[in-house]
Amino acid sequence: MRKFLPGIIATLSFFYGWSQSKTLSGFKENSAKQEFSTEEKFDSYLKADNVGQLIKDMSARPHHVGSPGGKAVADYIYNKFKSWGYDVQMETFYVLFPTPKTRVLEMTGPTKFKASLMEKVLPEDATSNQTSEQLPPYNCWSADGDVTGELVFVNYGLPEDYEYLERLGIDVKGKIVIAKYGRSWRGIKPKVAQEHGAIGCLIYSDPKDDGYYHGDVYPKGAFKNEYGVQRGSVMDMPIYPGDPLTPGYASTKDAKRLDKKDATNLLKIPVQPISYHDAEPLLRSLEGPVAPDDWRGALPFTYHIGPGKGSVHLKLEFNWDIKPIYNIVAKLAGSEHPDEWVIRGNHHDAWVNGAGDPISGQAAMLEEARAVSELVKTGWKPKRTLLYCAWDGEEPSLMGSTEWAEMHADELQQKTVAYINSDGNGRGFLGVGGSHALEPFMNEVARDVTDPETGISVLDRAREAQIIGAGRSHTSKKELLNKKTINIEALGSGSDFSAFLQHLGIPSFNLGFGGEDPGGEYHSIYDSYDDYRRFKDPSFIYGVVLAKTAGRTALRLADAEALPFDFKSLYKTLNSYATEVIALADQLRESTATENRLIKEKIYSHVTDTALKLMPPSAKDEVPYFNFSSLQNAMAALEKTTNHLADALAKAKLDGAKQDEVNKMLYKAEQKLLLENGLPRRGWYKHAIYAPGFYTGYGVKTLPGIREAIEQRNWKEAQEQIEIDATVIKSFSEYLEGIAKSIQ
Amino acid sequence: MRKFLPGIIATLSFFYGWSQSKTLSGFKENSAKQEFSTEEKFDSYLKADNVGQLIKDMSARPHHVGSPGGKAVADYIYNKFKSWGYDVQMETFYVLFPTPKTRVLEMTGPTKFKASLMEKVLPEDATSNQTSEQLPPYNCWSADGDVTGELVFVNYGLPEDYEYLERLGIDVKGKIVIAKYGRSWRGIKPKVAQEHGAIGCLIYSDPKDDGYYHGDVYPKGAFKNEYGVQRGSVMDMPIYPGDPLTPGYASTKDAKRLDKKDATNLLKIPVQPISYHDAEPLLRSLEGPVAPDDWRGALPFTYHIGPGKGSVHLKLEFNWDIKPIYNIVAKLAGSEHPDEWVIRGNHHDAWVNGAGDPISGQAAMLEEARAVSELVKTGWKPKRTLLYCAWDGEEPSLMGSTEWAEMHADELQQKTVAYINSDGNGRGFLGVGGSHALEPFMNEVARDVTDPETGISVLDRAREAQIIGAGRSHTSKKELLNKKTINIEALGSGSDFSAFLQHLGIPSFNLGFGGEDPGGEYHSIYDSYDDYRRFKDPSFIYGVVLAKTAGRTALRLADAEALPFDFKSLYKTLNSYATEVIALADQLRESTATENRLIKEKIYSHVTDTALKLMPPSAKDEVPYFNFSSLQNAMAALEKTTNHLADALAKAKLDGAKQDEVNKMLYKAEQKLLLENGLPRRGWYKHAIYAPGFYTGYGVKTLPGIREAIEQRNWKEAQEQIEIDATVIKSFSEYLEGIAKSIQ
Repeated sequence: MRKFLPGIIATLSFFYGWSQSKTLSGFKENSAKQEFSTEEKFDSYLKADNVGQLIKDMSARPHHVGSPGGKAVADYIYNKFKSWGYDVQMETFYVLFPTPKTRVLEMTGPTKFKASLMEKVLPEDATSNQTSEQLPPYNCWSADGDVTGELVFVNYGLPEDYEYLERLGIDVKGKIVIAKYGRSWRGIKPKVAQEHGAIGCLIYSDPKDDGYYHGDVYPKGAFKNEYGVQRGSVMDMPIYPGDPLTPGYASTKDAKRLDKKDATNLLKIPVQPISYHDAEPLLRSLEGPVAPDDWRGALPFTYHIGPGKGSVHLKLEFNWDIKPIYNIVAKLAGSEHPDEWVIRGNHHDAWVNGAGDPISGQAAMLEEARAVSELVKTGWKPKRTLLYCAWDGEEPSLMGSTEWAEMHADELQQKTVAYINSDGNGRGFLGVGGSHALEPFMNEVARDVTDPETGISVLDRAREAQIIGAGRSHTSKKELLNKKTINIEALGSGSDFSAFLQHLGIPSFNLGFGGEDPGGEYHSIYDSYDDYRRFKDPSFIYGVVLAKTAGRTALRLADAEALPFDFKSLYKTLNSYATEVIALADQLRESTATENRLIKEKIYSHVTDTALKLMPPSAKDEVPYFNFSSLQNAMAALEKTTNHLADALAKAKLDGAKQDEVNKMLYKAEQKLLLENGLPRRGWYKHAIYAPGFYTGYGVKTLPGIREAIEQRNWKEAQEQIEIDATVIKSFSEYLEGIAKSIQ
Repeated sequence: MRKFLPGIIATLSFFYGWSQSKTLSGFKENSAKQEFSTEEKFDSYLKADNVGQLIKDMSARPHHVGSPGGKAVADYIYNKFKSWGYDVQMETFYVLFPTPKTRVLEMTGPTKFKASLMEKVLPEDATSNQTSEQLPPYNCWSADGDVTGELVFVNYGLPEDYEYLERLGIDVKGKIVIAKYGRSWRGIKPKVAQEHGAIGCLIYSDPKDDGYYHGDVYPKGAFKNEYGVQRGSVMDMPIYPGDPLTPGYASTKDAKRLDKKDATNLLKIPVQPISYHDAEPLLRSLEGPVAPDDWRGALPFTYHIGPGKGSVHLKLEFNWDIKPIYNIVAKLAGSEHPDEWVIRGNHHDAWVNGAGDPISGQAAMLEEARAVSELVKTGWKPKRTLLYCAWDGEEPSLMGSTEWAEMHADELQQKTVAYINSDGNGRGFLGVGGSHALEPFMNEVARDVTDPETGISVLDRAREAQIIGAGRSHTSKKELLNKKTINIEALGSGSDFSAFLQHLGIPSFNLGFGGEDPGGEYHSIYDSYDDYRRFKDPSFIYGVVLAKTAGRTALRLADAEALPFDFKSLYKTLNSYATEVIALADQLRESTATENRLIKEKIYSHVTDTALKLMPPSAKDEVPYFNFSSLQNAMAALEKTTNHLADALAKAKLDGAKQDEVNKMLYKAEQKLLLENGLPRRGWYKHAIYAPGFYTGYGVKTLPGIREAIEQRNWKEAQEQIEIDATVIKSFSEYLEGIAKSIQ
């Protein structure tokens, strides 16, 4: 579901002591040699042609949740694993999944217009004509509704856009809003619209964002054509993902289910995605103020905010059915520690044919699993158990992974060393996010995979891409030139790692390549094999590169003698987050004071063109000084402890049993960062460090309890969250100290 | 000619000791009271209705150089001054002025297209139908030419755009380029195109820059419609302005004239401005690479750079006639110092009807002059002589003011206290640029004029507009909140102050209001009375505000006992420029080193998508360390001297004759900043501090000799210019020291 963003690599800059010589953390010298030789064999088994064939096979038909094509893909994957000798299970859950029954969007006078709500079949795209199996353009989890009202353009539909509307005296209460796709996860747009009293929401793809503004449109080029529509979920997943009727527990056949109206993550208003072909007459009909610069798209007219003279009628009805979803779980038992699991996962369900999302990642994972099975044929066995999971139901709300993780929560927390996720993949740069205690480890993995386009390592290429990054100053480029590692990104949401990392505290990664594969096919019928082979990864070689990267990650974690967790690295990252939230409070205090002074001294009124009829912003509560001392003390203690633990681990000569005891303590450590009651108003999210933003959706918030309380100007809660996070960091610190003591 | 830019106010931030109490620099207490009372009367004579009527009268017909309408406007102004009792002269010069004879632009296959090259008559615009008197869209000083070639899109046509083309391997040699209006003065575009070997140049107005992207188009709104074309000069005025055939001397009837081919400021290639209606088929025909983000406009297709399959044929022929131009010079002799002149000026010629440019400014100046004549009726007389000048021939190349200034150079340098320029005017904020020794004086003027929309002073409104300025950080806002003055901008070019300030070293101002009057009428047939009264200054009240501001400036300079030059203020500004050029060298050294390292380490090659076929930039010469000590020593001496002079002036009790002797020395001081040989390769520009940029046209370069040598990477010349500027600043400093000594 996640769209690869080239900016995925975080840009915090500090320098590790980690050396670039060919050592392998967690392996003794001889084992390291053996590991390198295993990886060399592994690489030799990976074939780009296989990746291409897998993509072609699995994207041959639409295969969304509950569809015949979906079951066919699940069976295909099951049979592949079976044929490679894995111990395979198909685990089925039963989930709510709405599909459209009625979709009407029309404008009633002065100009009459009825939206097509359809994408066009193209002769250049062989699967675009499978109309009988396609889900038409819709937003999954829209409410049923039949509403008529004036239309208001709300830019990207974010909270700050409504602040601007307020300054214009435009209220969306009782009106239908039209928002552009982009800037936030789509589900935020109807959520914020609903919060402001809108009765319906349209979301369209402006050509400025992924259409002709960027390049030639499909099928001539890769960008979104006039009729392309982005489907997608609008469930309020920042509350909780998975089946909305079974929050926090598995949606087995007989599970107790909430009544739909009691699911707190479902919208009350209808939402429909449209093409810019359908959006254009609606936008042209708007009157009222001219949209400010940042709101304007690339359509050839003046963007007004509205409303216009006409009304818009939106009628949507859905089949609210319970559908089976099929997770495939393929196991390769560990030879030494079968009760320690390294889990790889990628979803298999798509909105339509999904050649890119998720099949390109699924194909790479399958090719990786096949190569592992080839290793097995040579007599090699992983020390720890490897699990390959193909998830269903990711697109609507991460259902396959979430229900599975909820079902097996205790066992997973006991056994899982790490969860390694991937999703859609393409030509370009390594993007990697995850648990920062494994950041140095991931740098070693990336060091050892060669980029096929340049012949340098995928680490160096990612690092160099950061250096050239847009808007970077020469000073900052120079600084980065002297840094030989990359920082991995903190994970928000948008793919199947959420339940593992944010609900269960299992160390996780999300891996993928991209950035040289831009286009407008995302969640449309044009995310097809024909599109993929022309614009995404024509030789399928980046599928192989992903298999090499994720495969190494899995193999090393499965075979390492000492698990390569580096809590000093985690400390440094975490401390940078603590520094950030402290600075955030200071900046907000300063900017609020200045802003309030500008308002009080009437400066906005004096300098705003009266013709704009734009009121000054409202004054805001002054920001108090917070007591950050508990957090600062917890961080100081954590620094000492992590140094202490690192020293102890470096000095210790652990025998097998003791080493294993320590390993188990290490991989469970991140669970100590879970908040007992989770985040405020969304207790499913328990991780103190990483969460998707309540108002960003995919975008991460680090130290989310504190950060979001400050951003939302909830001063009381900010102070409470400082104490809560300080407490959990302190107990995490004590846990690590316990490990250190146990090996002295 | 100059288009008002809201950002005209410079943003350097330092704090004057100048107090906001109602004192008046240069006036003793009693005289100040009298001056305030005179100004009150002056204000009471100014009528918005008169301004409106003057605009309507003078914009009633097209009145470009050499047209019947042009002569009629000159006569109208002459008669007005006459009727108000001024001693009026009409001074005529004879200048080269090309007008179009043949204009053909067409595309030959695969798509055939012939450009209309016409604007549309609109029933909503009463003067748009005066086609027989209108100059059609053309660029004045285009060469004659008949060329056919491939077309290449060059963004805004600036040097950096060609650097990017070079990285793409696209050469414009033998081709025709199409550039967007904007970012630089228009004349830079064909100049740079010619430097790169292009054989022709088209300039079009993209709707992103002044069309529907910004608001509804004319006549519904103020922005440029599909057919609107910006006319304008493309003479290389950064070499020298005025009649190209009489560089540095007056173009009297019998003056010796250069052969046109020897005029170094004339182009060799044909240039034609077009509407986006005419540009669209040309741009759509382009193939080749997709234009990068910053190059894309608002037309509804993918911008490619080209070339395409077709050829473009451009044929232009001009009548190269000598035409008379009519300057009106109206004199009001000073009662005490008739040989000391305060000069006000505004041009009267337009490209078509020119209601905004220049008539709105001309009307305000006439109303100001009328109010002054009313003062005279009450028995008041200025102490110094006031000259009101209405210039002809500004649009083609500042010809009226330049030829006049060249004609009277010696007398002007002897007599002129200051030149106060205005041009087009509209609703909004005070914009003011000029000589920085008069910055505190101008702050006092702006303090005493009330903004009609807000009731605060135009000073406070301009100051507050700076605070809210786009992209400003809260820290910088807070800093500006505590500053009670504005910095005036350094003057580049684009209106009639150039000859006075940059050629003769006469202290100058350029004044105007704007920023709430955006639109797309500039230099088109739609710059009409109908447009002006709807979108620019509907009640004509900002004409009155300009008259109040420029009038006060003139009256105070005419009546001050001690001329209010403040060289400490000039020192501070000049020192900030010196600091800037030193920092510029350091930054360029750093960025060149980093950039060269990125190139050498192949980082551009590694991270640039191979599909883009974009070569890395070329490595550049490393930047040496310059010896800035002579400049720094000159600045240190200037600081001492200006402090010394300020103390001496504050302490001195000067009698009438001595005061006048000092006054004369003060107003001539800026002439000591003239370079004997002028700037390299453009000796007409003699001011060491202010010049239009060689590659910006209107945009100013301060310390231009040094700054441009560094920017153009001419290291040898940079060091030479440092010494030259240091010498001139030193001699300026000695001159000021001489004044200080003379009064001790």
